[in-house]
Amino acid sequence: MSVTIHDVARQVNLSIATVSRALNRPESVPEPTRQRVLEAVRLTGYRPDAIGRSLREGRSRSVGLIVSDIRNPFYASITKAVEDIAQARGYGVLICNADEKPERAQEALHFLASHQVSGIIHVPTGENVAVLGELEARGVPIVDLDRVSGLQNAGAVLVNNRQGARQAAEHLIGLGHQRIATIAGPQHLTTGRERLEGFRQALEEAGIRLLKRHVEFGDFREASGMRAAQRLFALPKPPTALFVANNEMMAGALGAVLESGRRIPHDISLVGFDDARWAQYMHPPLTVVAQPIDAIGTLAAEQLFERIEGKPAARIQVLDTQLIVRASTGPPGAS
Amino acid sequence: MSVTIHDVARQVNLSIATVSRALNRPESVPEPTRQRVLEAVRLTGYRPDAIGRSLREGRSRSVGLIVSDIRNPFYASITKAVEDIAQARGYGVLICNADEKPERAQEALHFLASHQVSGIIHVPTGENVAVLGELEARGVPIVDLDRVSGLQNAGAVLVNNRQGARQAAEHLIGLGHQRIATIAGPQHLTTGRERLEGFRQALEEAGIRLLKRHVEFGDFREASGMRAAQRLFALPKPPTALFVANNEMMAGALGAVLESGRRIPHDISLVGFDDARWAQYMHPPLTVVAQPIDAIGTLAAEQLFERIEGKPAARIQVLDTQLIVRASTGPPGAS
Repeated sequence: MSVTIHDVARQVNLSIATVSRALNRPESVPEPTRQRVLEAVRLTGYRPDAIGRSLREGRSRSVGLIVSDIRNPFYASITKAVEDIAQARGYGVLICNADEKPERAQEALHFLASHQVSGIIHVPTGENVAVLGELEARGVPIVDLDRVSGLQNAGAVLVNNRQGARQAAEHLIGLGHQRIATIAGPQHLTTGRERLEGFRQALEEAGIRLLKRHVEFGDFREASGMRAAQRLFALPKPPTALFVANNEMMAGALGAVLESGRRIPHDISLVGFDDARWAQYMHPPLTVVAQPIDAIGTLAAEQLFERIEGKPAARIQVLDTQLIVRASTGPPGAS
Repeated sequence: MSVTIHDVARQVNLSIATVSRALNRPESVPEPTRQRVLEAVRLTGYRPDAIGRSLREGRSRSVGLIVSDIRNPFYASITKAVEDIAQARGYGVLICNADEKPERAQEALHFLASHQVSGIIHVPTGENVAVLGELEARGVPIVDLDRVSGLQNAGAVLVNNRQGARQAAEHLIGLGHQRIATIAGPQHLTTGRERLEGFRQALEEAGIRLLKRHVEFGDFREASGMRAAQRLFALPKPPTALFVANNEMMAGALGAVLESGRRIPHDISLVGFDDARWAQYMHPPLTVVAQPIDAIGTLAAEQLFERIEGKPAARIQVLDTQLIVRASTGPPGAS
């Protein structure tokens, strides 16, 4: 930590604003005050021209982080975890938001390359394998987070999506549901595919066929979850239980539930994937498949720095999910 | 938009993975396939070495954005709005998270300077006036967002916090509440001060004295909101209505309400500041003072680019708040 104006202000027992004025607009403070401030600057070693140095000396060490949707609280939490690790290593983090658009992710990769980041953690949006390969070939380590990019040598930190979806399905089956539907994610993303597969498998093993009309697809964004739930609720025999494959689509599905006047869990049991912070404050609080968010971000950052430092790094780390049963699930028709 | 591997894959009707393999590991695909891919590369004008160019040519044009807390959905939405404007101008955005810590904000300013950003939008954490002044003196335009840094020449996009807090207080007074408390934000931040002032003024004008024990302070983070609410609920005569000065502290206060078994609004009426997306999905949905989030981000970005381009830019833009009455407020003792 460099000396800050805060330290100078403390030393001389003046406000930061006064110290700043004394340094930036000397005529605006009494001369004795200015003298005291200058003495404190000397004592603390404060370098008011530090910004000039940063400007002259060129870029600091940095790593890049590309998240697929910064408004999804899952990625906001991941971002914080990555930043904490990077900061402890003396690196800054350049954060980019792909907004679930592969072309924006590609622009972000070029942008990060042009800023010569030491490595990149990214949430794949489903394409850009070649660009990633080029970065890797040029010695920029890559770690996939949450989803798999298909890049051969990238590290990856993932959760066991099949297991998580299975936990959700088995919970609903155990409560006695037969008409169980899902709002699945995009099938070109590993998270979208694996969550649907785990869900379908658990149903099949219980002898329940997953009807085609009970599988709706969204794009992991709120609006698509709302539309998908509306379609399910419009069926002649609507489902009594619903597994929604991420928290953003769940927010949308909840909007459709409220709009339709359905009671949770009496008319519809709901299980989400990812324990968004708001899930516990809902009434009733949401049953969810929780992901170990902090561990995902921390392990991805640690793996990236091991690669940057040329140490042998873990290749693929798959973390367990955890079913958290709250009050949004119950037997069919239960109040 | 440059040509992507996606375009090549479409042209040749192969998967992106195959095209990538053909380009990156030619021995891994049959020779005819490789020839088809190379022909498609020629036809589309795809430049597989674009990353190399980005690496060689040096940094892209960029602006910096420092938010005070990336996990607060208010700032996540601001981030998206700023990015959309920047992208349309051909700029990338370097996002930093100060995590409500002035020393981290200072590091972020140095980091952004070292990456030679063209301008900075930042949510002040309450210090760093001198560093900001140095940046500005060196020709880096600065725009304050949400809070005022105290920097003389910075632009600023703010909301009318006094008005917003007043709307909240007048709504509670109009419902017949007398024992009205608040969880206020940090008083070294303009948002913290102004929201408390507007709240206090509205009460005074209605002839209600704001008791000292009815003013709790938090740090705009969730945990502090929970602790503050717990202290208020432990009073011999707890308040019947509560105004919480930001959405993160409101999340914590809601935790304390659930924990104490209080019913909303029968036992406690709640008004928040900022309409977090989850507020409408609560049961009962939350009454809030809404801020025009998209407009804040968009105006800040537009003002920054006007300054970067040397155009006359608006100085301080103060936007109106809007009270949205939902079901978390009612008369004292109402069910």
